[in-house]
Amino acid sequence: MNIICDKKELLEGINIVLKAIPGKTTMPILECMVIEVEAGSIKLISNDLEMGIETTISGQIIEEGSVAVGAKLFYEAIRKLDSDVNEVKIQTDDTMILKVSGGKTKYDITDVKGTEEFPLLPTVVKEKRVTISQFTLRNIIRQTVFSISDNENTKIMTGELFEIKGDRLRVVSLDGHRISIRKVQLKESYDDISVIIPGKTLIEISKILNGDLEDEVHIYFTEKHVLFEFDHTILLSRLIEGEYYKIEKMLSSDYDTKVIVNKKDMLDTIDRTTFLIKESEKKPVIIDIKDDVMKFSLNSARGSMDEPVNIQKEGKDIMIGFNPKFLMEALRVIDDDEVKIYLINPKAPCFIKDDDETYIYLILPVNFMV
Amino acid sequence: MNIICDKKELLEGINIVLKAIPGKTTMPILECMVIEVEAGSIKLISNDLEMGIETTISGQIIEEGSVAVGAKLFYEAIRKLDSDVNEVKIQTDDTMILKVSGGKTKYDITDVKGTEEFPLLPTVVKEKRVTISQFTLRNIIRQTVFSISDNENTKIMTGELFEIKGDRLRVVSLDGHRISIRKVQLKESYDDISVIIPGKTLIEISKILNGDLEDEVHIYFTEKHVLFEFDHTILLSRLIEGEYYKIEKMLSSDYDTKVIVNKKDMLDTIDRTTFLIKESEKKPVIIDIKDDVMKFSLNSARGSMDEPVNIQKEGKDIMIGFNPKFLMEALRVIDDDEVKIYLINPKAPCFIKDDDETYIYLILPVNFMV
Repeated sequence: MNIICDKKELLEGINIVLKAIPGKTTMPILECMVIEVEAGSIKLISNDLEMGIETTISGQIIEEGSVAVGAKLFYEAIRKLDSDVNEVKIQTDDTMILKVSGGKTKYDITDVKGTEEFPLLPTVVKEKRVTISQFTLRNIIRQTVFSISDNENTKIMTGELFEIKGDRLRVVSLDGHRISIRKVQLKESYDDISVIIPGKTLIEISKILNGDLEDEVHIYFTEKHVLFEFDHTILLSRLIEGEYYKIEKMLSSDYDTKVIVNKKDMLDTIDRTTFLIKESEKKPVIIDIKDDVMKFSLNSARGSMDEPVNIQKEGKDIMIGFNPKFLMEALRVIDDDEVKIYLINPKAPCFIKDDDETYIYLILPVNFMV
Repeated sequence: MNIICDKKELLEGINIVLKAIPGKTTMPILECMVIEVEAGSIKLISNDLEMGIETTISGQIIEEGSVAVGAKLFYEAIRKLDSDVNEVKIQTDDTMILKVSGGKTKYDITDVKGTEEFPLLPTVVKEKRVTISQFTLRNIIRQTVFSISDNENTKIMTGELFEIKGDRLRVVSLDGHRISIRKVQLKESYDDISVIIPGKTLIEISKILNGDLEDEVHIYFTEKHVLFEFDHTILLSRLIEGEYYKIEKMLSSDYDTKVIVNKKDMLDTIDRTTFLIKESEKKPVIIDIKDDVMKFSLNSARGSMDEPVNIQKEGKDIMIGFNPKFLMEALRVIDDDEVKIYLINPKAPCFIKDDDETYIYLILPVNFMV
């Protein structure tokens, strides 16, 4: 193998494939990325067996070939090159040494393996394609992924439901205490799809997406996999098997109290309660809604906090307690300046949602003693 | 106690006294800062028994008194207040609750203690005063403190020698592998002083100093303590007892090779070797000086790196190995664009110093095999 490539493009490429390099593994080959120079193109490939990434970079090909190299080491080697360096030469032969040079710097990297051992990405038949903008996909992930569970015993909760009906995409995550739902209108209609995508895949892909409204992502679904195709990159992930929770019956639109409140005011006020809580403690923030005021308070072993926030209210007064983290995480991802909160009673979940229900955040209350 | 103070000034004050709040302690009172309102002034005080800080803030005093409050908790309470809030009211009575309010936010902090338990700062007789600019003090600490030792078994190495002779201040740190020396011309002459100041004290004070050339620090020395007085703050620290190492005999001015090199080129080149080293490995960077080129190389289990840097040279060619970290830490704190390196042989220390010897960095070489 013998190639010359642009340093910036190479670095961006490595950065993308690093997302599927596992932090810890018992299979050293997975810590490698493959540089595959074949059929006139230069591909960088990684695969942690849950998720695989392949990205193509441009460059001058002098000789084809392929090699697996320690991904983090290779990244550092390129990243550390002098800022003046624009071109990187990469060369390998039968000696299992990767020769990398840029400017006056020369590396002989021996953390190199043959590509035979490397688990190739399974070939996916590209049917059932759905197209969405990079901006939208990144946003809906950000706005839901915080409420997946990290408990591997309830595997389904570690993923998100992606459900397509006609021209509507609905994304759902839940962890037993709360449910986050985002609905998006697609440009076209598609056949019905309902899959569970691992949260880790979604977190990693949202780091790679450039987030432009103009740029598209094509998503292909198969029985066991989902494939995202965008820019010069494909990301292939296993799906989580099983059936997702039936959430319909939890989504009531009845309410006894409706509150309209400035999102930042509410978020900042709750944030001011959290430092009173020690890590081991579980103290609720208590919300006392009376007339046009929502009073937030919290009592802990270290002290208490108390603050009113002005609101518009319809319906009954109510006093209710929540885990402050759950309220804050939902409020943080809402882009509206004002939010609407719907409540029934101190034992029933609250709903934070917009009029069109493009987002719905259901949060269970906690018991408290006044 | 009942006071009203400016939020910004209060926050800055807490930030200063936080520097003497220990991370871990078996004495909970040391995690508190004292707010002492007495004789018309508001003082914030902390003391970790090695080092104590007292800073005065302005404010409106309605009633005098004093209280000890969990410092980190109090800091968070004030920091979290709404950005619109300018004034903070702080009040306490016999109930051991600290009432803090700003804007619409009210805190009742119960992480409060009486001040009787709190270890007061010892009174220091202010003789032997030395004056220096905040800028200079901060710089000489930055330029030497990286080469103290963190091994508490050689207590003296955990501090720095501050030595005054006439109008010259010399600051020395060493860790057994290297010596860092900074010399500063003072505006006046003083009696001879030679003390060892704990490195921790110097690190913390350099975080508080504003670093202005115009603003002064007065330093008072006693047998057991050093007191720094600047702005509205005093910082009192114990000295390390014992006699410092005799370094004079290690400071040779003979050399067989003198190299002038661009500091950034040398630093960046060494930096490009370090990622090849695993944490457990101790691999030297090998410097091969021949004619007008200084070639840097490093071999590790993961690969090798090789890069020439252009230099001006006087004297013999030489090949010598160093711990790359030691070279980088010295180069990083030197403000000159070009540095001069003096070498004798592969077993003898190298010296990086300027012509006036305002700084001298002595670094021992390491053995290597080619």
